[in-house]
Amino acid sequence: MNGKLARAPENFLDPHQIAQVQAGRRGFLQAAFLSAAAGLAASTSARAAQGDPAILELPAHSKGLGQPVAARPYGMPSQYESNLQRRESPGLTRVGGASVSFAPLQGFFGIITPNGLHFERHHQGWWDIDPAQHRLMVNGLVKQAKVYTMEDLMRLPAVSRMHFIECGANTGMEWGNVAVPTVQYTHGMLSCCEFTGVPLSTLLDDCGFDRKNGKYVLAEGADGSGMTRTIAMERALDDAIVAWGMNGEMLRPENGYPLRLVVPGVQGVSWVKWLRRIEVGDQPWATKDETIHYVDLMPDGRHRQYTSIQECKSVITSPSGGQRLLDRGFYNVSGIAWSGRGRVKRVDVSFDGGRNWKTARLESPVLTKCLTRFNIDWVWDGGPAILQSRAIDETGYVQPQMRQLREVRGRRSVYHNNAIQSWKVAAGGEVSNVQVA
Amino acid sequence: MNGKLARAPENFLDPHQIAQVQAGRRGFLQAAFLSAAAGLAASTSARAAQGDPAILELPAHSKGLGQPVAARPYGMPSQYESNLQRRESPGLTRVGGASVSFAPLQGFFGIITPNGLHFERHHQGWWDIDPAQHRLMVNGLVKQAKVYTMEDLMRLPAVSRMHFIECGANTGMEWGNVAVPTVQYTHGMLSCCEFTGVPLSTLLDDCGFDRKNGKYVLAEGADGSGMTRTIAMERALDDAIVAWGMNGEMLRPENGYPLRLVVPGVQGVSWVKWLRRIEVGDQPWATKDETIHYVDLMPDGRHRQYTSIQECKSVITSPSGGQRLLDRGFYNVSGIAWSGRGRVKRVDVSFDGGRNWKTARLESPVLTKCLTRFNIDWVWDGGPAILQSRAIDETGYVQPQMRQLREVRGRRSVYHNNAIQSWKVAAGGEVSNVQVA
Repeated sequence: MNGKLARAPENFLDPHQIAQVQAGRRGFLQAAFLSAAAGLAASTSARAAQGDPAILELPAHSKGLGQPVAARPYGMPSQYESNLQRRESPGLTRVGGASVSFAPLQGFFGIITPNGLHFERHHQGWWDIDPAQHRLMVNGLVKQAKVYTMEDLMRLPAVSRMHFIECGANTGMEWGNVAVPTVQYTHGMLSCCEFTGVPLSTLLDDCGFDRKNGKYVLAEGADGSGMTRTIAMERALDDAIVAWGMNGEMLRPENGYPLRLVVPGVQGVSWVKWLRRIEVGDQPWATKDETIHYVDLMPDGRHRQYTSIQECKSVITSPSGGQRLLDRGFYNVSGIAWSGRGRVKRVDVSFDGGRNWKTARLESPVLTKCLTRFNIDWVWDGGPAILQSRAIDETGYVQPQMRQLREVRGRRSVYHNNAIQSWKVAAGGEVSNVQVA
Repeated sequence: MNGKLARAPENFLDPHQIAQVQAGRRGFLQAAFLSAAAGLAASTSARAAQGDPAILELPAHSKGLGQPVAARPYGMPSQYESNLQRRESPGLTRVGGASVSFAPLQGFFGIITPNGLHFERHHQGWWDIDPAQHRLMVNGLVKQAKVYTMEDLMRLPAVSRMHFIECGANTGMEWGNVAVPTVQYTHGMLSCCEFTGVPLSTLLDDCGFDRKNGKYVLAEGADGSGMTRTIAMERALDDAIVAWGMNGEMLRPENGYPLRLVVPGVQGVSWVKWLRRIEVGDQPWATKDETIHYVDLMPDGRHRQYTSIQECKSVITSPSGGQRLLDRGFYNVSGIAWSGRGRVKRVDVSFDGGRNWKTARLESPVLTKCLTRFNIDWVWDGGPAILQSRAIDETGYVQPQMRQLREVRGRRSVYHNNAIQSWKVAAGGEVSNVQVA
């Protein structure tokens, strides 16, 4: 999509049809009616061309035999959807194995992210690890260190829960005045899936962890980046999952197959992929990925560490940057909201840059530490507008305006930007990313 | 999978490892520990072979640079999961375009069906229809017949809801004494997704349907089978959706791209794919697909028509037919339950063919007309066992035993079999489909 016309509603129209819409809808719809009135598509037979509009040629799909079942044992999207891809931001890093691919939020519906379009953030590339060879060790302050095979783990009592995962650096470019053009690049390090696995607490219990001195766990991945993150024991025992399932099937290799840690509400870096070890300890490990990276540079020059929870946030995905409204009138404005601290309680939407707010409809289910889809009616009068969404979670926390966040955090951060996003609709219908003072 | 060792837990083990497990687990786990203790995989270096177990060779994935992000703009499952496919039952029909592919329920987790493994039932094959050409007409007893483009529809107020879809013929072979071997073939005409679209009621309102005489709607598909189904107006106005989204992305071609009707709780045939027309009428249409097909042959020789709601049902998916328990001890027994009449209230599981029952854990979220995942602990003593699950929905309806269902329905039906499924575990661990008297 990338700066061209994008889904919802524009990407179903070819340039000729767009011209028709912009010239006025009547002719367009009339032609459509004639074609559909007989339940048919657009092309007409020679007889119809000779003045007999009732004789229309059936499209191939309404008269022929189509593809058989299981033509593709594992199915793929329509050929007409091939433009909806996860994309690397060109030049973001020098090595594709230590980079990001962003999820195309502008084309998503509901709350579930299709596994094929889940965002990626790798530190030393992804691998397709043989699950028969993979092991998980639990050691440290435990009565008995244990090593689990996948077989061992998948025999244990399992849970399935839907949660969002957001990279701590999501929306990081907006700390400066770099308004990247589309919601794919502003907010696309965000996905939401149903995860299945064994609660981390079950494994810690199984190994007899030290309840007095065991204050933290370390999670370690099997890839070459030596990814290691400290997690407070309180959180480890609460709702963390050692997961193998994602949206009904096994994790994808890019997402840690065969095993990743799920730490609901916490930034993605702690959801260690290709998980191979959990260690129980009495203090934080202060690893490179929690002291040098994923820290917040505050206005006084100090680095704030261990700020892991993703605060309440939302974004309008349709319309959004790079899309274009083709004519005035009714639109369903749609977006997503989430909070690392629980459920989304309410989402308000403004069409005038934050002066007036209306409450959006929340689509069910509204789950804890999970995306929530919101929708709201809007009649575009053809004039300029600035669209914003503001989420409020069940703790009462209100998503801040950018200037409110900057008053506390300054402008030099990379991580943990949960400010309200503004999309400007120009009089011509073009939608772009703007920062509102 | 098909009759061989299947997932959960067995499919991660190669034959050598299976032999190790069966010979006793100690050596197997000890070897695993040695390899994992240094955070490594199984192969050892020459020095380790010479008696220095501390020197182990790192696996490639722990030292090399892996694949870059967006290596696959639309991702696919691991190479180790290639056996998990939707499959056509060999010989079920003579034409693959008028057949079924079954979803591999034995390998699923949670409630979401991955789009690539959604079951298929086509009547004249599937097509990848150009959404820019596709139209939906609403006509009949309406003030103004209208034709909608995809663009028109996607501007309307949208909803997103999770629902199961089950073919009315699911589990049909079990009416006789044909015990097909696996849960993929007994129950695999079943899937569950998050659907996004516009409520059908919104379109009916938009066209000003006749509230006095409009008692039914007809849904018509654009494929060559002329698929048409009558739906009572009450249901059409309740929770039916004209949907384009499925698990966050556009519908797959095999599932009706770009538009299908979602009729929650009702058998799949009414979820008309490639939806092109909705007609409002004053009586049922009695089309071929509701008078000749999808009817129930009762013991008195009469056909029962319009039995569309899928009654409360459940099945254990792990362990299930064709799988094998490799050793005694603890297992997480897992399955799914659903009801076309609302939420699942409770699922009981029996390990002795229905004499004793225990209540299973339900995984959240428990949603109306949606799959619900259940899990229950089991310690297998190595002896024969018969596993059953029994679902109860919020109306109080209890899923029947096969003999109870046959007392009412006889044995000559094809459709609407919601009987309790029995899996027999033999002393050797083999799991097979049995019918319990």
